[in-house]
Amino acid sequence: MGGAETDRRAGPGRVYLVGAGPGAPDLLTLRALRLLEQADLVLTDALVHPDTLSLASRAQIVFVGKRAGQPSPKQADINRMLVEAAQRHRCVVRLKGGDPMVFGRAQEEIDALQAAGIGFEVVPGVTAALAASAELKRPLTQRARSRHFVMVTPKHADGSPENDWVRPIIDADAAAVYMGGAAVTDIAKALLRAGRPATTPVILARNVSLQDAEYLRSTLSEVAEGKLPAEGPVLILIGETFGDPA
Amino acid sequence: MGGAETDRRAGPGRVYLVGAGPGAPDLLTLRALRLLEQADLVLTDALVHPDTLSLASRAQIVFVGKRAGQPSPKQADINRMLVEAAQRHRCVVRLKGGDPMVFGRAQEEIDALQAAGIGFEVVPGVTAALAASAELKRPLTQRARSRHFVMVTPKHADGSPENDWVRPIIDADAAAVYMGGAAVTDIAKALLRAGRPATTPVILARNVSLQDAEYLRSTLSEVAEGKLPAEGPVLILIGETFGDPA
Repeated sequence: MGGAETDRRAGPGRVYLVGAGPGAPDLLTLRALRLLEQADLVLTDALVHPDTLSLASRAQIVFVGKRAGQPSPKQADINRMLVEAAQRHRCVVRLKGGDPMVFGRAQEEIDALQAAGIGFEVVPGVTAALAASAELKRPLTQRARSRHFVMVTPKHADGSPENDWVRPIIDADAAAVYMGGAAVTDIAKALLRAGRPATTPVILARNVSLQDAEYLRSTLSEVAEGKLPAEGPVLILIGETFGDPA
Repeated sequence: MGGAETDRRAGPGRVYLVGAGPGAPDLLTLRALRLLEQADLVLTDALVHPDTLSLASRAQIVFVGKRAGQPSPKQADINRMLVEAAQRHRCVVRLKGGDPMVFGRAQEEIDALQAAGIGFEVVPGVTAALAASAELKRPLTQRARSRHFVMVTPKHADGSPENDWVRPIIDADAAAVYMGGAAVTDIAKALLRAGRPATTPVILARNVSLQDAEYLRSTLSEVAEGKLPAEGPVLILIGETFGDPA
């Protein structure tokens, strides 16, 4: 009866697109924690920490993460699974690494939910660049030194308008490149060609906020020489603010 | 004795630069919650929610926020207070709205702590742009439509190198302008002059994530006409991703 009864609608449940944060389980928000505790079903990305998933103690956990080189659901499959889940469960959490609105394919999931008439909310999370900055103790912005910070991907969807990712990085005082690991040498070369100084500090960040976090400090010219290992998920940080303090 | 005793060092305590998130108390991270609960002293920005401050139940709370038009501590005073606090207390939290590394004057506080030999950590938080995006249900990035997102301020420190904030906004698919409220008309005019289309969606966001959050939807040409109220702290969101879905 009462409040709880009112929530058990016959119609579809509610979906929450939730940011799991950068990796460390305690960088989750309190709102995300509460939703995970209430969730009936969690559709999760591949890279979410097991301790974060275990917070969803009463939920069925479904892995839908896309991992490079492994068979994994296509985005259209995930959209369909999300709609079906909401038709069967009251509280569905779609858990995404970092923040759901930053390189998280959120629009496609939002479109699918809206087309199906399913109510949803988005819960922000700490995106990797913020956590890397904190761990490195190098601010993304600095007074008089770093007045703009751009998050960018060099990825280009088939048939989409040209993605000129060079200009945004060149013109901003600092940048974080997401999903750029495989192209890191080409990125550094392109930025040098476009006039960014060879000494510009670059940090390759891996496993940000986790016990095995790695930060490889370099410069644009060193990275352009192609000698740095950059396989797997790497966040590339570029800009004077990532070098030694002024 | 034991663990607790070991922590009560004679030397200076430890300082945590902690992101309080965008405003809503439940958008705090679990790590920030734990540190607030342990804090002996909290030096806080002006705009942190009272319910967030009340989590620091055993701490002395000191307000050091800079508010436009009111007498408030200068940054050098805050730096000094932080060092003095660490010399007297074991666990000092410097609580900042949003994320400490995004337009939070973190470098100056880090410099002061390092000069005084005081150990410190940085705890990231959800910055306003991420929370606004979540609340608006408009992703900051979209596949094939928004591949770069820049956070920028038009503020210019006295005697510092020129801050060309126009190019980073023009070249990125989407932008959030922090601390730009007072200049919003000039910003829109400058972007139009630099070639950004008149129909580019603009959203003026106020009190992001709070009960009285306000999102005023407009376009670059309307904003340039100077008819929109933009006093006080306003986050300006610019880009096609903030308009109707494609």
